[in-house]
Amino acid sequence: MPAKIIDGRAVAKRIRGEIGAEVDDFRKATGSRPGLGVVLVGDDPASAMYVRMKRRACERVGIRSEARILPAAATQQAVEDAVRGFNEDPAIHGILAQLPLPDHIDEEAVLSQISLAKDVDGIHPVNIGRLGMRGREPSFTPATPTGVMILIDESGVPIEGARAVVIGRSNIVGLPVALMLTNANATVTICHSRSRDLPTLVQGADILVAAVGRAEFVKGDWLKAGAVVIDVGSNSAPDASSDKGYRYVGDVDFESALPVAGHITKVPGGVGPMTITMLLANTLTAARRIAAGCK
Amino acid sequence: MPAKIIDGRAVAKRIRGEIGAEVDDFRKATGSRPGLGVVLVGDDPASAMYVRMKRRACERVGIRSEARILPAAATQQAVEDAVRGFNEDPAIHGILAQLPLPDHIDEEAVLSQISLAKDVDGIHPVNIGRLGMRGREPSFTPATPTGVMILIDESGVPIEGARAVVIGRSNIVGLPVALMLTNANATVTICHSRSRDLPTLVQGADILVAAVGRAEFVKGDWLKAGAVVIDVGSNSAPDASSDKGYRYVGDVDFESALPVAGHITKVPGGVGPMTITMLLANTLTAARRIAAGCK
Repeated sequence: MPAKIIDGRAVAKRIRGEIGAEVDDFRKATGSRPGLGVVLVGDDPASAMYVRMKRRACERVGIRSEARILPAAATQQAVEDAVRGFNEDPAIHGILAQLPLPDHIDEEAVLSQISLAKDVDGIHPVNIGRLGMRGREPSFTPATPTGVMILIDESGVPIEGARAVVIGRSNIVGLPVALMLTNANATVTICHSRSRDLPTLVQGADILVAAVGRAEFVKGDWLKAGAVVIDVGSNSAPDASSDKGYRYVGDVDFESALPVAGHITKVPGGVGPMTITMLLANTLTAARRIAAGCK
Repeated sequence: MPAKIIDGRAVAKRIRGEIGAEVDDFRKATGSRPGLGVVLVGDDPASAMYVRMKRRACERVGIRSEARILPAAATQQAVEDAVRGFNEDPAIHGILAQLPLPDHIDEEAVLSQISLAKDVDGIHPVNIGRLGMRGREPSFTPATPTGVMILIDESGVPIEGARAVVIGRSNIVGLPVALMLTNANATVTICHSRSRDLPTLVQGADILVAAVGRAEFVKGDWLKAGAVVIDVGSNSAPDASSDKGYRYVGDVDFESALPVAGHITKVPGGVGPMTITMLLANTLTAARRIAAGCK
């Protein structure tokens, strides 16, 4: 029996519907809309596309969005000023610095400027520290990892006591997913480019999160039968049959994984739609907290 | 062939000798001594003992130490004021809040007050976040985990590419050790009380760090032959042959582990002496940075 597909698009649609209704309630109650401020530096086409997608997604649920677009040569001071401007703007409840920033910009210094109350990307170093520590709560959990956790829940497979393998240790996906799974009482192994004998490591996983950024890297015969497979990858692969000449594929070789896995996400249509959805959810939460006078 | 003993006492003694000489150089160069400020709240005997041990260790290498001892009923404000007093004191370069704090005290709020430049325990949430994140550097790494990493290095077994299992996910040992091993390119599995089939998980470990707080919990037949075993536990076990009626034992059943492991630490005399040593090293580093005008 092939794996059940965890349909990220359907889950995202359902949650966005709920967010839209709650944004309406918020407007009725407060007379204002939740607002997201986005800082984009430079003209990387992928970053520009993500910012446009976030803007459209905001519009659809009734969240205001505002972008500060700075030239690639912007100074550290100018980028930090853009963040601080949003910190002080009462119409902005969530702030997102689109990563990666240009090489000459000190990324941590920029992220550290974001007010914790507005850190809807959950990526302030304090929030990452709190995410890992017992008895601490980050003000927000990061968007993609939160989306991953929701998709695992969709499978119905219990996380507590499960063995989970996370491939990749990036600041925005691998590391926080590993911390969140550990907090949810999974036994987590963090794998990366220096890990030896990855197929054997993956073989032990009841839950696999692939966030390595290599097209169709994980093969079906690496998987434990019945595993939950969450594919965070989004890689372009040559495809002569497509008008664009390429298509997007995940970090998992979907065709070979389908007969082995118990539940699996697709690329596109899996984790991708969840990331922006979680950003919208966090922005609404931020607006509610600020309206309620939380600090 | 039984495991080689990694002698934490000898390593600590060697490093403390180096620190003592460097403290002398610092005094000659600056006319002042590095200073450690310790905040102790309440009258827990174990905490009081740790604070006395730290004070004595400071004296022996020429570091000044100063303790603010508050009653168990101290207010949040009073505890934070003690920390802030040390922040502003130019004679204090490192600050340590002895944990655990009483239940009515918000621990994170206290730790967050410690100036990053003086966080010699490496336990400020920002430092834990930086510890885990790629491309970030904490101002200090936490004492016990740093001691663990040095003892692993003493074994001569390469960390890169090794499979490491950490049992325990505490904020001060398990979590930061797992992050430091991941940064050193080990493939790390974090185990805890909800992990199933621990013996099998441990069987895969080239490096085992036991920080679970259960006397002689890990048995020799769980271990992979030749593994490096670092025992962070310090548990009291009944011992009729001792004057005190008890003795200290680790989280590893030493007798059964000795014939299987390749390298192993003892309790006492393993990780324990390293913890205070790393605190001394961090305090010296803090004093040098502050003297050099770093922020």
